[in-house]
Amino acid sequence: QYSSGVRKVTLIPGHGIGPEITVAVQKIFEAAKVPIEWDEVDVTAVRGPDGKMGIPQKAIDSVNANKIGLKGPLMTPIGKGYRSLNLALRKEFDLYANVRPCRSMEGIKTLYDNVDVVTVRENTEGEYSGIEHEIVDGVVQSIKLITEEASMRVAEFAFVFAKENNRKKVTAVHKANIMRMSDGLFLRCCRDVANKYPDIKFEERYLDTVCLNMVQDPALFDVLVMPNLYGDIMSDLCSGLVGGLGLTPSGNIGKNGALFESVHGTAPDIAGKDLANPTALLLSAIMMLRHLKLHEHAERIQSACYAVLREGKHLTGDLGGTGKCSEFTNAIISKFN
Amino acid sequence: QYSSGVRKVTLIPGHGIGPEITVAVQKIFEAAKVPIEWDEVDVTAVRGPDGKMGIPQKAIDSVNANKIGLKGPLMTPIGKGYRSLNLALRKEFDLYANVRPCRSMEGIKTLYDNVDVVTVRENTEGEYSGIEHEIVDGVVQSIKLITEEASMRVAEFAFVFAKENNRKKVTAVHKANIMRMSDGLFLRCCRDVANKYPDIKFEERYLDTVCLNMVQDPALFDVLVMPNLYGDIMSDLCSGLVGGLGLTPSGNIGKNGALFESVHGTAPDIAGKDLANPTALLLSAIMMLRHLKLHEHAERIQSACYAVLREGKHLTGDLGGTGKCSEFTNAIISKFN
Ligand SMILES: CC(C)[C@H](C(=O)O)[C@@H](O)C(=O)O
Ligand SMILES: CC(C)[C@H](C(=O)O)[C@@H](O)C(=O)O
Repeated sequence: QYSSGVRKVTLIPGHGIGPEITVAVQKIFEAAKVPIEWDEVDVTAVRGPDGKMGIPQKAIDSVNANKIGLKGPLMTPIGKGYRSLNLALRKEFDLYANVRPCRSMEGIKTLYDNVDVVTVRENTEGEYSGIEHEIVDGVVQSIKLITEEASMRVAEFAFVFAKENNRKKVTAVHKANIMRMSDGLFLRCCRDVANKYPDIKFEERYLDTVCLNMVQDPALFDVLVMPNLYGDIMSDLCSGLVGGLGLTPSGNIGKNGALFESVHGTAPDIAGKDLANPTALLLSAIMMLRHLKLHEHAERIQSACYAVLREGKHLTGDLGGTGKCSEFTNAIISKFN
Repeated sequence: QYSSGVRKVTLIPGHGIGPEITVAVQKIFEAAKVPIEWDEVDVTAVRGPDGKMGIPQKAIDSVNANKIGLKGPLMTPIGKGYRSLNLALRKEFDLYANVRPCRSMEGIKTLYDNVDVVTVRENTEGEYSGIEHEIVDGVVQSIKLITEEASMRVAEFAFVFAKENNRKKVTAVHKANIMRMSDGLFLRCCRDVANKYPDIKFEERYLDTVCLNMVQDPALFDVLVMPNLYGDIMSDLCSGLVGGLGLTPSGNIGKNGALFESVHGTAPDIAGKDLANPTALLLSAIMMLRHLKLHEHAERIQSACYAVLREGKHLTGDLGGTGKCSEFTNAIISKFN
C-alpha cells in the first residue's frame, strides 16, 4: 500500500497554536528528509448546503485521497448545533481506533518514571453515540451503543498493535459488572480475539480498579483496550502521568485512513508568539511515520526529540523553560547533523 | 433527630475479612465509650418468595428501624441473576449520595502528599440504571438515565456537605460536551444549586480533564460532584493517590438512612488470620459518628488512628508492616488512656 516514493499527507494545521507547531513539524521533517509531501487544508467549519456547519468538502476530499493526515488542535465553537470538529473527523472517516501511547521521558519530571502504556480506545460508538432523549420533563436518557462489529475490530486492532510493537499484554477495561450486556459484549469480543493471540497475555479489569492501580503502579499495564468513554478518561489520566497533553501523541486509525493529532487545546493566549510546545504534534507525526512504515525516519526524529527534552536547554514555557518554539525546533534539527 | 442517648446502629460485618475488621471497630468504639449499640445482621443473599436472591428481610428491617448502618465488604456471587448486594443496599434504601473523602495521611507513603478531596457521587441512576437491551444480534444499548430530581438532590448534598465541612469549592465533573442532554441536565442542576451558595466557589470541568489534572496536582480540587459512573472512577482514582481502598472511607447517604462502608474487597486469602487492615472500616465508622453529630468521639478516634499510622509501628501487611489486625487495633485503643 505504501510505496517507497514520496507520500502525500493531508495537513490540518488547526487553530490557535496549531499553525506554528505545524510549521515546527514541517521544518523538522524537511531537515530529516522525510519523503512526504504535505497537502495543507483548512477544516474550520463552514455552512453546508443543508444549512448545517461542517467540515469543508476540500478537506474531506484531501483525506479521502491521501488516506492519511496530521492535524493540529481545533477550536470547537460553543453553542448548540455545533458538533466537535474532532468528533466529526473521526466519524467522517470511520477512524475506529484511537491509540495514545504514554511513556515517561527523561528530562520531563513527573511523579512517575516508569510509565509505558498504550491506550486503545473504541472511537466510533459507546457513550459517544449521540443518541439522547428527554423522556418526560426532567428525565433524560443517553444511549450507550456497543456493537459486536466495532468491538471486534478495535479488539483486533489492539492485539495486532501489541504484536507489531512487541508488547506483552493487553488489558480489556470494562464495567461489565454493571453494564452486563453492553460492556459484556465488548468483553466477549476481546476474549474472542485474545484467543487468536496466545503469545500475548490477556487480562480483564474493571475501569475503577484500573484507575486506582494506574496511579499507584503504572508498570502493571501495557496495552489497554476499552469502549469510547473509558478510553477518553484513561488516555487523559495516563497522559497526566507523563507530563500532560502537550507531550503525548495520538492516532486515529480506520480501515481506509488514519489521522494523527495532538490532543491538547489551541492555547489562544500564547498563539502566534512562538511560545508553543510542538512535542505532542511531533510525536503524533512520528506515530504517523511508523504507520507509513517509515521506521528509520521515525526512530531518528524521535531520538532527536527525546535528546532535546532530556538535555533540557531549550524547553518551552509549559515545561518550565524559556525556549521558543523555533529554538526547540532548531535544537531538534541540529541533532540530524 | 439524634438524641444524646445510646444510638442503635445496624452492623453488617460482611464476608471474608469483614468480621475481623468489624470486631476491631467494635473494640475501638467500646474503648472510646461511643454511645452506640450494635444491631448485627447478616446480608448474605437468600432466596426470596419470588425465587430471586436478595437481601434477607431481617437486615432490611434493621436498617429501616435504625436508619443508620456500618458495613464490611460483601462477596458478590458470580453468575447471572445475581445483582451486587452492595448495589441492592444502595437501591433498597435510596442512598442517593456516595461520599468518599480521600486525604493524604502521615505515615502512608504514596507519590502524593497534598491530597484532600471529597468525591460526591450520584448513587442511584446514570449508567447504573440497569436498563439494557440487545436491539438486534450484536447490537446492545445501555441506558444512562439522568433525572432532575436525583441530580438536584445530590448537588444540594454536595453544597451542604461543603458548607458544613468548611470546604471552599465544589467542582461538577461531566462530559456535557458529549452527552449534552444527560450530563447537560446534571450540570444545570449543579449550577442552579451553586447559585444558592455564593460563599462556595463553583467550577465545571470535563471528566477527562479532571483525571489528568488530579494525577498532576490534586490540590486543584476540593469537593467534586458527579454522575454515578464518573464517581465510581474518580473515587477509586483519588483513593489510589492516598494509599488505596484499604485506607479510604465511604458513606452512602439517603433521606431516610445512611450506610457507611469500607469499599475494599473481602480478601479471602487472608481472612480469619488476623492480618487484615481495619483502617477503611474504622474511618467509615468515624464518618458515621460525624453523621450522628458525635463529633468529639469522631475526632478522638480519628486522632488515635492517624497517630498509629504515623508512628508506623503496628502497620498491617498491606502497608508493608508486620502488625496483626489486633495489634493495630490495640495500639489505637492505647491512645485513649
Ligand atoms: C474534545 C473532546 C470531544 C474529545 C473527546 O471527548 O473525545 C477529547 O477529550 C479527546 O479525547 O479527544
Ligand atoms: C462493587 C461495584 C458494584 C461498585 C460500583 O461499581 O459502584 C464498586 O466499584 C464501588 O465503587 O462501590
